[in-house]
Parts: sequence; C-alpha cells; structure tokens
Amino acid sequence: MGLTIGVDIGGTKIAAGVVDEEGTILEKHTVPTPPTADAIVEAICAAVTAAGKGHDIEAVGIGAAGYVDDKRATVLFAPNINWRHEPLKDKVEQRVGLPVVVENDANAAAWGEYRFGAGQGHDDVICITLGTGLGGGIIIGNKLRRGRFGVAAEFGHIRVVPDGLLCGCGSQGCWEQYASGRALVRYARQRAMATPENAEILLALGDGTPEGIEGKHISAAAREGDKVAVDSFRELARWAGAGLADLASLFDPSAFIVGGGVSDEGELVLDPIRKSFRRWLIGAQWRPHAQVLAAQLGGKAGLVGAADLARQG
Amino acid sequence: MGLTIGVDIGGTKIAAGVVDEEGTILEKHTVPTPPTADAIVEAICAAVTAAGKGHDIEAVGIGAAGYVDDKRATVLFAPNINWRHEPLKDKVEQRVGLPVVVENDANAAAWGEYRFGAGQGHDDVICITLGTGLGGGIIIGNKLRRGRFGVAAEFGHIRVVPDGLLCGCGSQGCWEQYASGRALVRYARQRAMATPENAEILLALGDGTPEGIEGKHISAAAREGDKVAVDSFRELARWAGAGLADLASLFDPSAFIVGGGVSDEGELVLDPIRKSFRRWLIGAQWRPHAQVLAAQLGGKAGLVGAADLARQG
Amino acid sequence: MGLTIGVDIGGTKIAAGVVDEEGTILEKHTVPTPPTADAIVEAICAAVTAAGKGHDIEAVGIGAAGYVDDKRATVLFAPNINWRHEPLKDKVEQRVGLPVVVENDANAAAWGEYRFGAGQGHDDVICITLGTGLGGGIIIGNKLRRGRFGVAAEFGHIRVVPDGLLCGCGSQGCWEQYASGRALVRYARQRAMATPENAEILLALGDGTPEGIEGKHISAAAREGDKVAVDSFRELARWAGAGLADLASLFDPSAFIVGGGVSDEGELVLDPIRKSFRRWLIGAQWRPHAQVLAAQLGGKAGLVGAADLARQG
Amino acid sequence: MGLTIGVDIGGTKIAAGVVDEEGTILEKHTVPTPPTADAIVEAICAAVTAAGKGHDIEAVGIGAAGYVDDKRATVLFAPNINWRHEPLKDKVEQRVGLPVVVENDANAAAWGEYRFGAGQGHDDVICITLGTGLGGGIIIGNKLRRGRFGVAAEFGHIRVVPDGLLCGCGSQGCWEQYASGRALVRYARQRAMATPENAEILLALGDGTPEGIEGKHISAAAREGDKVAVDSFRELARWAGAGLADLASLFDPSAFIVGGGVSDEGELVLDPIRKSFRRWLIGAQWRPHAQVLAAQLGGKAGLVGAADLARQG
Repeated sequence: MGLTIGVDIGGTKIAAGVVDEEGTILEKHTVPTPPTADAIVEAICAAVTAAGKGHDIEAVGIGAAGYVDDKRATVLFAPNINWRHEPLKDKVEQRVGLPVVVENDANAAAWGEYRFGAGQGHDDVICITLGTGLGGGIIIGNKLRRGRFGVAAEFGHIRVVPDGLLCGCGSQGCWEQYASGRALVRYARQRAMATPENAEILLALGDGTPEGIEGKHISAAAREGDKVAVDSFRELARWAGAGLADLASLFDPSAFIVGGGVSDEGELVLDPIRKSFRRWLIGAQWRPHAQVLAAQLGGKAGLVGAADLARQG
Repeated sequence: MGLTIGVDIGGTKIAAGVVDEEGTILEKHTVPTPPTADAIVEAICAAVTAAGKGHDIEAVGIGAAGYVDDKRATVLFAPNINWRHEPLKDKVEQRVGLPVVVENDANAAAWGEYRFGAGQGHDDVICITLGTGLGGGIIIGNKLRRGRFGVAAEFGHIRVVPDGLLCGCGSQGCWEQYASGRALVRYARQRAMATPENAEILLALGDGTPEGIEGKHISAAAREGDKVAVDSFRELARWAGAGLADLASLFDPSAFIVGGGVSDEGELVLDPIRKSFRRWLIGAQWRPHAQVLAAQLGGKAGLVGAADLARQG
Repeated sequence: MGLTIGVDIGGTKIAAGVVDEEGTILEKHTVPTPPTADAIVEAICAAVTAAGKGHDIEAVGIGAAGYVDDKRATVLFAPNINWRHEPLKDKVEQRVGLPVVVENDANAAAWGEYRFGAGQGHDDVICITLGTGLGGGIIIGNKLRRGRFGVAAEFGHIRVVPDGLLCGCGSQGCWEQYASGRALVRYARQRAMATPENAEILLALGDGTPEGIEGKHISAAAREGDKVAVDSFRELARWAGAGLADLASLFDPSAFIVGGGVSDEGELVLDPIRKSFRRWLIGAQWRPHAQVLAAQLGGKAGLVGAADLARQG
Repeated sequence: MGLTIGVDIGGTKIAAGVVDEEGTILEKHTVPTPPTADAIVEAICAAVTAAGKGHDIEAVGIGAAGYVDDKRATVLFAPNINWRHEPLKDKVEQRVGLPVVVENDANAAAWGEYRFGAGQGHDDVICITLGTGLGGGIIIGNKLRRGRFGVAAEFGHIRVVPDGLLCGCGSQGCWEQYASGRALVRYARQRAMATPENAEILLALGDGTPEGIEGKHISAAAREGDKVAVDSFRELARWAGAGLADLASLFDPSAFIVGGGVSDEGELVLDPIRKSFRRWLIGAQWRPHAQVLAAQLGGKAGLVGAADLARQG
C-alpha cells in the first residue's frame, strides 16, 4: 500500500512521478512547462492525472521553487513563476481530487536524500543544493524543519561578503553568488579573460571566448586538467566549504549532503569542499566533525522527496 | 514538587540557585570563582550543597561556557577554564549525590528566556546573547536544539567578514568581533580617537583618553546624546541586525530574543537592531517577520534555564 | 596671444570651446554626438572648425573617456565609443590643420581645476570626479602625472571590497561601484525598498517605486530632509572619504578636489566626505591634513583643462 | 669626488656606510641600537663619525622608519622609537658637522633600487618592501615623490579589506596585514593548525607546534615542497599582486620592484605575485603592463639610497 505522486517543476518541463514507500519511481510523466502562472497549475494537474492513471494514489507532493507558507498550501513568492500568494494546494486538490502537500523544492530534495539517499542513518542532516543558485534543507531530529512561517533554509541568501555581489533577491553578498553553478561560470570566465594561456582546453570547448564558457565546459576541462577550470572549482569549493563551516557552527549536524548539478562532478568538487570546510571549521580539534557527503539521488531527489512528504501527511 | 538547582559559572563568582517550576529563584548561594580547573569543580559542588540545604532537590543543571558534548555530561573545551574533555557531570554527581545535566551557558540562558521570559508563547525562538562575546541558543518545535554532537548555536563564530578581524577562536571575521560588548568598546575607542570633538561626554566619563573608554561609559554617554557613543551603538546594531537577517534566512523563527549585557540598554540598542534587521531581511515583503524582543530575565537567565533543563531531565 | 580649443565629448553632445590663457571660454560650439566611432571623429573636427572660425587658434586639446597613450595621440580603449587603438590626434590634425593633444577626460578636468579652479595655489593635488562613475587626475609638482604609459589615475578601479560588486571593467569591488552617482542611486533604491516609510519624500518625487528613483530625486529629497536620501549620501560619503584616506596614504597631496555631478550638491556631500576622510586617515595626529575642496568649474573643467593642456604643448 | 654616508637604523644595530657615486659601500661601521630615543641619536652620530674617519665626506643621509617631514629634517612620528617631532637633521648636523638629509627608510630603499638596482633605466618606478610590514617608495619622472608633507608612499596602510584585521596603526584592513612577513607567518600558522598533515616538513623545522612556526621555517619548508608553506606564500602573493594591480591603476609605472626580506625567496614569491598582479590588473588587454622585478640590493638598499639622496642634496 501507499503510492504517492511527487511533482518537480523545472524551467522546461514538469515531471510527475508515482513513488512507492521505498522511494522508487514506478512511473513518470512529463509535460512541457507553459509560460504563464495559471497554465503551469493546469500543467501540474495534467501531469499528475496522467502519471496516476491505473495507480492507487494516496496523495500528491509538489516541490516548488520559492517561499511556501507554513501550512504547505500557498506559494508566497516564486522567483521564476508569477506566483504571489498562490493557493496551489487548493487549486490542485480541487482538480485532481487528492490530498496535496506543497513544499519548497530544495526542502523536498533534502528530504529525499535524507530518506532514500546519502542521509540515511543520520538524524541531523543539512543538505545544500549547488545548482544554478544555492538552496538547501534542514533535518533535525528526523524532521524537516521549515521554520515558523515555512521559509527556513534559504541558505543561498545568507550574507558572506558585506557589500558584495548583487543578488537577484535584491541584497548583496549572498552565498549563492559565490557558491553555485552561476558563480562557477563567472570564476571561469574571469580567469580565462585574465590568463587565457591557462584556459586553452576550456576555451577550445566553447566558442573560444571567455563569454562562451558554460558550466559543462568547465567540468569537461577540469577533468582534463585545464588549470583555469580546476582553479574555478577550487574557488567555488573555497566558498562552499567556508559556508558549511558556518552551518556547522549553527546546526552541528552529523552530515552535510552536497547535491545539485555542480555536485555531479563528484570528488572534483567534493574533495576541495571538504578541505575548505575543515580549514574553516571552528573548534575543529575539540569536536566531532560532520561528514561531507555527495548526494546520491541526483535530479530525482526533489520528486521523490515531495512524494514522500505527501505520504507523511 | 520539583525544585532543581541551576548553576552559573562566572569569571568572578559561581552562583547556585534553587529554582521552582515557575522559574522563581527561591534561594541563591554564591562562592568566588577559584583559579584552577579542579578547584572550580569543588566550588561548584560546594555552592550546590550550600544552596540546596533544607530543600528537596531533584536535579542540578550547570551552565558552562564552551563546548558540551551531546550527552550533556562532558565539557569538551572551555575557553576560559582549563577544562578539556572534563567529565563534569560525573564528578559533580559523585559529590553532590544528585542527577546532573551540563549545558552550554548560552543554551541555558536561551532556554530560560524561552520558558520564563521573552520567549513564552513562541515555539521557534532564536536567542542571541550580546555579552563580552556573542552566544546564543536555538529552540525549534519547543525543544532546545543542541546539534548532533552538542555544539550547535555557536552564533558568535559564523564568518561575517572574509579575512576580517582575528578572533580568539583562531579564525577571522567572526560575528562576535563585530557584534558584542568588546566590539562596542572598539568602535567607541576608534571613533573617539578619530573625532574627539564628537566624544566629549564619553571621554569625560573615563580617564580622558580613547583607551580609557569602557562599556559602561558608552552606555551612559549614549543616553546623554554623545555622538560617538550613539554611533558606536548604531555600528554594533548594524552588524547585529544583519546577522539576525541571516539567521532568519536559516531558521525562520517567530521571534529573536536579544539578551546579554549590551541589551540591558534596551531600546537604545534594540531599536537600531530592529531597523538593521529589517534593512537586510531577505524577501521581506513576501514573508511574515520575526519579532526582535528584548530579553526579560537579565543575568539570571542562565541559572534559571539550567535549573529548568535539569528538571526536564 | 594664445587661444586654444578644448573639446569635451559627452554622451549626447560634443562641445568645442575657444579658451584664453585665463581659462575663460570665449566661444563655444556644440554638435550632437553621432552613433558611430568614425562619425564622432568627424563631429569633433566639425565642432572645432566651427568654434575656431574667426579666432587665431594655436592648438586643440581633446578630452576623451578611456585610456589615452603616453604620446597623448592614440585612444587605446574607450568604454563608450568603439575606439580601439584609435589614432585620434593624427586624424584630427589632418582635418583641422592644428596641433592636437588628446587627454583622458578626467585628467583634463583635474588640470582645469588645478589651473583655474579649486586647485590654484597648490602644487600637489588629487582630483576625483564623482559622476556616473568615478575618475580623477593627479598633479604632483605642478605637473599632470599620466603614468609611464598614459593610463594612471584610474581611481575608480582600485579594489575597495574583495569579492565585491561586479564592475563594467570586468573586475569586482571597484571603488566606483561604491562612490559614484550610480552607487548613490543603488543605495537609495535599496533603502527605499527596505524602509519605504523613511523615503516618502523621495518616492513622491519619482514614480512612487524604488526603481523609479533617479539621482536628481535623491538630491532634491535630501535637501528636504528625506531620511533615505540623506542616508544614501552618507553611505556614498563613507566610501568616498575612506578612499581619499587611502589616496592620502599614497600621494599625500595638500588638497583633494571633489568634482563631478554628485559634488554639485556641495556641503550635502562634501561635509560627510570630509568626516569620513578624517575618520579613516592614517596617522592623523602626526601629519598635516590635506584639504578636501569642492570643484569650482563644474561641467566645463574638462573642456578648459583640455584647452590649457594643448597650450602647454 | 663625492663620498657620502648612508645610515640605516635597525632594531638591533645601526649601520653607517661610506658610499661612492656608483653606490658602492667603501666602508661600513655598525653599533648596537640603544634602547632610548636620545641614545639612538648619539649612536647615529658615533657610527657616522667612525665610518667617515679618513674619508672626505660631503653629506649624510639617514633612513628612518616613520613619518619624516617635507623638509627632510624632522621625524614627525616613528613607530618603534619614541621620536615625536624629533629634529634629527639639526641634532646630527651639530654633532657631526656635515649636511644631513633625513628620509623615510622605505623611500631610501626605493631610491637605492632605482639608482643602483632593479630600477635602473626606468623613469617611473614603484617599490614595495615586504618586510615585517609593508613599505615602499614612489619614483615618478626620475624623482622620489614624497608628497606635499613628506608622508606619501605609506603603501602598507591602504585599506584592502573593509572591517578587516586590526593594524598597529589603529585602523583596520591595512594592506600590510595581508602582504608582509608577519602575514606570511599568520597564514602558515592558521593552515598548520587546520591541516597539520599538510605541514609536516614545516612543523618539523620549528618546535612542532603551529605557534612555533617562524618566517625562516616557511621559506625552508616551501623549498622542500611543504604544502602549507607553499600555500602560505601563494596567499601572500594573492594579496601582494592584487595590491600592485591597484597601484598600477593609480601610478601606471613601467616597473614594480619587490624588495624586503620576503622577496629574498626570489621566484618562490615573485612568480605568484606576478600571476596575481596579472589576474587583477584592470584593462589588461588595452595597456602595456608594468614589469614586476625582484629587488637587487637586498638589505643594503636603504643605506645606499640614503647616501645617494644626501649626495643629491
């Protein structure tokens, strides 16, 4: 017994997956992401209905980028979709006839890793997701901690550089400006501009100009030993590790899980993050150290986590 | 039924207080703080025994500066006392014959405020203590959150300035170097040095030199409108509020409680902290805002909190 | 004897003025700034010819934004015009039949102020121009110091915040991102967003939104005491003054001259700059302090300075 | 014709050397540095008299740490000696009966390198001295530039990190806190504390503890490939090179000369400084780049430079 559907809303497609109690995706249905806020609600419902056909579904969990309220019902604000105080739970429940739980997508991914991925066996886990930006989730005492108003774990927006880089959130110096896929690309472009002779492999993978460098080029070039690419990963890791050290001072978890597209590079990025974490960890000689683990579920963590959160009710 | 003893270990004296279920201190006994680590253990036991005489005591809670392990038994490291992996719980239990709980002192104070002070009625509270340094405690879901290994909530040591001021912890740029009583004195001395004509009241309260400025002078001068004193509080508040905004991004509590000696100045410091908090709060227009409250228990928060934690077992 | 023509190349118009030995503009001719690099050269020549008609002109001085080589002949790079290694001196000399000197526009303005404005009587002067960006010029020993290769005095691009704001130059944390007209607008918008109740006058001057705030609104609102506007000028002054303190450590001039559009506000911005300068000046008690003076020539400093530099040959 | 004496005042000894027009030291006399301000004046005179015996001396140049006034006569402030407005020129002239010129020691060393060392053939040179702290000198147009009041070229005290490390000067974030021998030791100790397994060679050279690490150990360990030692030099070079890039934006010299004890390591430190300089140089593709050269005169640059400045009168 006990199938639920998890929904992942991406920039180009919306995926709805039927997930069992072990976190296995039995069936998945995707639809293109439409351009307007209302149409996205329709598309979510369509994907859920299509995926659930022929299954006995108990509930639906939706992972959405942005602020979700403490009732897990309303999207207060979404950065990429024009949702403002959007009653997503009610709308979807009415159309699909199933109980719906809405969750911040990074929270959902954190929960997925905690339940079925790298976090298994840990009671207190902090996940960070290094994607285009930087998100994350907090598990303390085996529960997802969402904050009093539902908007906790916005890791990407703690200020790590006073008067630092402008962030899309309107503030300056946010962590995600220094530790994210977007930051990685910036590091590589700046370095390739300053020292092109150290970026020959990297530049050859794109159009030959610093501006033409994209994330995938940096990964490929780093694996071939391109100096600028390797240094760019190190710079990212320097900031990621220092931030994890701050989170250790605050949360003292037994494990950090590093997910998101950037972490797909595995030890290329995990190893320098661990070193930086250890470099900056306060009181390192007097305390047990949290492990820094690679996420295991990849891109499906959010969908699986959302489905499992729906199951928990 | 249900008296417990709370112990507060200060730099000059150790206080043991008998506390009832309402958080009232029925009786308090203090002894001078001896110079050596072993003698301090003895002094704690003596204070507990003296305070408990004639009362029916169930348990003892000790608040200690430093890292306390997850079993609330061992002081892993104390910054001011030469305790390293000190089995304080066992030692005191053996001598006083009562169950003992050891807790980080800032955690104990946070718990005191949550139970009997400004935090009453809130489920999710973050306390910060602006004393000589900066400490704090985390209450989520009505429980004190100590981290997996007992050393969470070391707020004072998150890095707010990369390559910033040296900290006693060995790292650089720690929050407590910018938001604490010690920071306040530094701000005032630097400003009085640069613009003595704006610090006439302040300088007159000390020995006339910038080096002679102490914390109490700054408070007194600020109340009289001394420009340097007022600006020094604002600078402190600027950093305190910006840090609270970060903690809101992470924990999203319903209230922050600001305690410690610096907060004794009340609105003189609370008001600019609130403004700075609001200035830097991310997504301010899309989320409910945490309240920023003054602590209510003053210097007894730690003792009362430790006693109550001992009662909870 | 001795009339020369100074040329000022603005974003919307090009001005050529006939200037005498006292720095007086006898006649001025302006033409619209055309869109292409070649057409701008033509327009310069046309303006010079028109202005010079009926005068006995000895030489022409052209102030151009960007890098000008050490021979004062070639524009190596212009940020706003597509000039790259542009032989401007040769081109204009061929067409107007007069000796031509090309100079960086901020250098020209500095020279103008030194010769005929606030810098008269000083041998060692540093000028900064707070316009949209931040430029400046160096006079040491009564000579304009251009550097070995002609590109000295790029004050706006010294790094004042490591890992700070992105700059148009490709680097991060450049001074002009913190002390310039553009920075002033950013400060006002951020503050008006965070605390609109403190920006009522300011917001009413624009379209009512933070994004609608422009520089002229901030000046007007500050004069009426609008808190956000005043605080925005203070923030700008904080950075401007701290940078001047650095320049004092390096150059130790007898005077700083602050020009550019932002400085048109006079004491509203000069007074806090002086205070910040004094706050950050190193060794303040052991050294004579440079004066911080308002520029006197306003927008014509560059034209007059260029003309005078042409006269000097 | 034309022998002069140069004087170098060190922490442990005072050296007076007879120098000819080619910058060759013909004879040198040293005396221990006495503890009091007056005694140091006596010792200088004694050393000069002893060194000059049997030579036909024209003048004496004294290099002194601290602020020297624009008349090159009075030490306004010395950081290590209790000289405050000390009329050193008059006192020494009276006793030795020769014309005396007083100069800031880093200025003297810069002049020495310009005249007889790495700066020969350059008209515009910036020297930085990476010793315990960071000093330097400015040569523009073949003249030493001392500022209007004599206190220019205090490179070590420009602010490179807002709210950064405390400096002995009373300010924060000064360049010399990040690029100097003292900074190098701090880097090595911090890293050896965090990752002792990467500092085995380094730790073995001292007493085995991070606190026991000294500058000479870092040099020796770096030459053997010790990771912490190499990384510490890189960190120093990162800050040194970024600062040189700022100086290039300001002064645009044809060469930088890097001297001082740290630079004795040669390419070990010069090579990463050059890379960092290039990484941060603004407008790098549009301008000729200054060379970054190793100083050639070592510890005698100050004495030789002071002697030569005395010759120039």
